[in-house]
Amino acid sequence: MYVPMSVSGVTVDPITNTPIVILKEINGDKILPIWIGIMEATAIASALENIKFARPMTHDLMKNIMETLDVKVTKVEVCDLRDNTYYALIHLLTKDGKEYAIDARPSDALALSLRVNAPIYVAEEVLIKSAKLSEEAKKSDKWEKILESLKPEDFGKYKM
Amino acid sequence: MYVPMSVSGVTVDPITNTPIVILKEINGDKILPIWIGIMEATAIASALENIKFARPMTHDLMKNIMETLDVKVTKVEVCDLRDNTYYALIHLLTKDGKEYAIDARPSDALALSLRVNAPIYVAEEVLIKSAKLSEEAKKSDKWEKILESLKPEDFGKYKM
Repeated sequence: MYVPMSVSGVTVDPITNTPIVILKEINGDKILPIWIGIMEATAIASALENIKFARPMTHDLMKNIMETLDVKVTKVEVCDLRDNTYYALIHLLTKDGKEYAIDARPSDALALSLRVNAPIYVAEEVLIKSAKLSEEAKKSDKWEKILESLKPEDFGKYKM
Repeated sequence: MYVPMSVSGVTVDPITNTPIVILKEINGDKILPIWIGIMEATAIASALENIKFARPMTHDLMKNIMETLDVKVTKVEVCDLRDNTYYALIHLLTKDGKEYAIDARPSDALALSLRVNAPIYVAEEVLIKSAKLSEEAKKSDKWEKILESLKPEDFGKYKM
């Protein structure tokens, strides 16, 4: 099962200072944050804000190559989440009707999809796994806060 | 006239802190420095050093798309230099024999060429213009040094 989503924006993780792209469910309120690189964040943000550069940026070049070759990006899918890494597929359709799915990082897939107006889908399983990860992060955060709140004299109170 | 060149390395302009890719003539000792972005410098350096990432970087994705579509990058050309901006062309050959030349920034063209082993050519005119620019930069540098060496009392000595 795949959920149609759209890029809602790019933000920055206040703790790690890493850019995050936020996907939002089109027909609901599910959210998927994906941590990405600074340059991919720039490529996504410039497409969102419709900023035009004098020269083609890397994903503009990719779009131009596709258009020149008469190849359509039919959709992009965030299809998997393994070991904290998100996986995506870029689906292509050639003018003679051949279909291909190319393995990509979600950041590249999204930066391209925004430039060619291709729909974005996220596997339901990825949303579930991501929610679980964020729950675990919150829990470890809770532990971190508990540990941080301890005073030096609290240590060594209990013997193993 | 086009001169066959190869990527000799990536360095950093000590004054502006901008990365520079250095092209070197294959059958001679002509040199062409091109100022590029940090992310494109990374893309070129990682190809030069043959660094493999777990996931495809943006130019790896571009290569994978070409390979999947059975499109060959026959060569890249640094074809023009206007208003301090270098222009490049990526030459493509499809499996049904069609040829295309895609406008690109030299940094993207070089990052791609290194991944697909495509030859690099630079227009003789670009080498001449670039040498002229660097001469002018040296001259302005000389003036800068003269101006810097002036003491406050040197100003206002001459009346217009």
